[in-house]
Amino acid sequence: MNAPALPAHATPSGLTCCSTAQGLSTSQDRLWGSLMDLARIGATPAGGVCRLALTDLDAQGRALVTGWLREAGCSLQTDAIGNVFAIRPGTDPKARPVAMGSHIDTQPTGGRFDGNYGVLAGLEVIRTLNDAGIATKHPVAVAIWTNEEGTRFQPVMMGSGVYAGAFSLEHCLAQKDGEGITVQAALESIGAAGSDAAPEFDAYFEAHIEQGPVLENSNKVIGVVEGALGQRWFDVTIEGQDAHAGPTPIDLRHDALLAAAELTVAVREVAQSHPDYARGTVGRLIVSPNSRNVIPGRIDMSIDLRNARAQTLDAMTAAVKTRAEAIAARHGVRIAFEQTAHFPPCAFDDQLKAFIQAQAIAQGYTHMTLASGAGHDAVYVARRCPTAMIFVPCERGISHNEIENADPAHLHAGATVMLHAVLDRARRQP
Amino acid sequence: MNAPALPAHATPSGLTCCSTAQGLSTSQDRLWGSLMDLARIGATPAGGVCRLALTDLDAQGRALVTGWLREAGCSLQTDAIGNVFAIRPGTDPKARPVAMGSHIDTQPTGGRFDGNYGVLAGLEVIRTLNDAGIATKHPVAVAIWTNEEGTRFQPVMMGSGVYAGAFSLEHCLAQKDGEGITVQAALESIGAAGSDAAPEFDAYFEAHIEQGPVLENSNKVIGVVEGALGQRWFDVTIEGQDAHAGPTPIDLRHDALLAAAELTVAVREVAQSHPDYARGTVGRLIVSPNSRNVIPGRIDMSIDLRNARAQTLDAMTAAVKTRAEAIAARHGVRIAFEQTAHFPPCAFDDQLKAFIQAQAIAQGYTHMTLASGAGHDAVYVARRCPTAMIFVPCERGISHNEIENADPAHLHAGATVMLHAVLDRARRQP
Repeated sequence: MNAPALPAHATPSGLTCCSTAQGLSTSQDRLWGSLMDLARIGATPAGGVCRLALTDLDAQGRALVTGWLREAGCSLQTDAIGNVFAIRPGTDPKARPVAMGSHIDTQPTGGRFDGNYGVLAGLEVIRTLNDAGIATKHPVAVAIWTNEEGTRFQPVMMGSGVYAGAFSLEHCLAQKDGEGITVQAALESIGAAGSDAAPEFDAYFEAHIEQGPVLENSNKVIGVVEGALGQRWFDVTIEGQDAHAGPTPIDLRHDALLAAAELTVAVREVAQSHPDYARGTVGRLIVSPNSRNVIPGRIDMSIDLRNARAQTLDAMTAAVKTRAEAIAARHGVRIAFEQTAHFPPCAFDDQLKAFIQAQAIAQGYTHMTLASGAGHDAVYVARRCPTAMIFVPCERGISHNEIENADPAHLHAGATVMLHAVLDRARRQP
Repeated sequence: MNAPALPAHATPSGLTCCSTAQGLSTSQDRLWGSLMDLARIGATPAGGVCRLALTDLDAQGRALVTGWLREAGCSLQTDAIGNVFAIRPGTDPKARPVAMGSHIDTQPTGGRFDGNYGVLAGLEVIRTLNDAGIATKHPVAVAIWTNEEGTRFQPVMMGSGVYAGAFSLEHCLAQKDGEGITVQAALESIGAAGSDAAPEFDAYFEAHIEQGPVLENSNKVIGVVEGALGQRWFDVTIEGQDAHAGPTPIDLRHDALLAAAELTVAVREVAQSHPDYARGTVGRLIVSPNSRNVIPGRIDMSIDLRNARAQTLDAMTAAVKTRAEAIAARHGVRIAFEQTAHFPPCAFDDQLKAFIQAQAIAQGYTHMTLASGAGHDAVYVARRCPTAMIFVPCERGISHNEIENADPAHLHAGATVMLHAVLDRARRQP
């Protein structure tokens, strides 16, 4: 699905070049400095960050970043779920903002870049426009979405989900953390509850570390994200017959773990034999009774199937179930599937992707197309306006981990490509 | 490995037929009654028995059974590990006893037949000889081995292991239960410690429920046990790389669970492709971190390989390790094997097996040869004298379970075959 690389002189539809902008670059050091300053709030001894949504640390992080955005000339709006929208005015009072953004809450043992990069790259784009004295037709905005990680409060991607209408505001405000504190109470206690209406965007860009190994492994700097994979999650139970390992010949067994093993292999084979970024994972598997010399009678396992196309995801699901039926018949066991989650695939906007790809080439960065295997705020925002994502490599693909790391030059590259893609969109004729 | 069935008129070498013995049969009702009487001591609400070794309940069981044996005219001896030997005198003062036996301790959620059947079938043989007024050249004995189950005190098969010299008496006496009570103290507290020397046997027969499904599945009543399978147990660790299921393409994974699944399938394939009662089991498997959307980075699993021949067991071990090396290379994971136990195979005595087979035919019972997949006291006793086992079916092969069950007619058949096999041996010319 790699789109062919555009030649360096190509001008995607809608791109208005100007000599001022063409050589414009974000500041690598300033961007890195902002990231490191924000990473101090909730810093962990192991080099990561623990800044859970709607905690006092989150409030400190919001204060730091919104302070920077205000200093950069943005007006600030906050909606009822605590999403913050910092808007740099455009020249056309009727034009909607071209937005960037992500989240600044983290996992309990999170890293310095997940989410934070998308917000601070947006800040860096605005600072760069300010320094160069560039006015845009459309306003340029930065969004900070509330509670993307979903660690303290579920559901995940809460703020962008409310923005997109995936969840109702009331439902989310009533959610409780482990201590019984509601989202509403937590928002109020840190002063993050607002009353502004969330703005409509002309477009939304989200820069993010890849959180996977594809760019690093392919030696590419810029990832043009095709979309986010659809997901189907299943809880699978296999019921066989417990029996002693010694006295029970192989042919008389109903070995639930053996069936699970064959199903695990089948999940991989199905993923390998389907196109469209197919992924299949067994991450959780519980053996009963789990004793060395007892043939297992029961398995509880998960199956996670992902694909960029809904039709292919359905075909994978059918293929796995067909394989499971054959395995069940072969071993005389029962295999039952329960679907526990379904996220449809999300394809990002073709024009925004073309801007990103063209600017990666124009700025001299290696690039490739790839899929986002995980969810991001952009997946929800895409339901409301044209949206695209820019990935940059992270070290060994590791994320949601205190050792999460990224190369300052790669972060700078992603911000610079976003700068120019935003200019492509924000300056274009309506 | 099935020996051909002997024709009904065949007389195995050493068999001395006499008209009195030829039609002799044990009493099905008396045997069943003894089993049910003993099962009342430690009876569980679910219909099983909990009578752990060297507890007060074990003492009550010993008192009941030794009382019966004394009433049957046996002299009683007890050795220092608490093994009981009940001896019915023979006509030749120099002849060694032909012994029968097993154990009367049970699992915590044990059944009514495991062990108990071998002891009470021995008692039933002696009662039958008494009723028929049959004298034998050799004494006929019943052995009750201490602590076969190994639940309260390890090692398992303690009494027969000490008898065979597999463990030293001192080592076993010093073993402690979960409360710190030694075997020595437990023996003394229930009055089960003796000072008699254990007798040398001419031969040893052990009748036992199969604890597996082979006889029932083959619709046979008598199992002529070829021997006990050798066992090699391994702890296997697989180290891959944790990663998020979404962002990590199939080809860039180091999925420890997928490697474990392939190894589990390989264990079965190796067992299926080797002769000599080959068995291979993965009973225990622990996934880390065991989260639905994380590719597992580490697996801890067991592999249990069994075979009737040491050479074939070694070949199976080599084959599994070769398969593991290929799996490790394919997935970029590390697989390490640690052998945690090794029990060599035990072949039972050819002449005793021929007696059993011939008497199964002579008494009109269906029979087959099979292997014991689990350990039994007979496996240790076989190190000291000619030994054989007689299996009878148990319902659905279930044992070590309170629902363990057996057909009174099958139990009677096994005791009657043992009666005649003992007579074959005890009457023979030295």
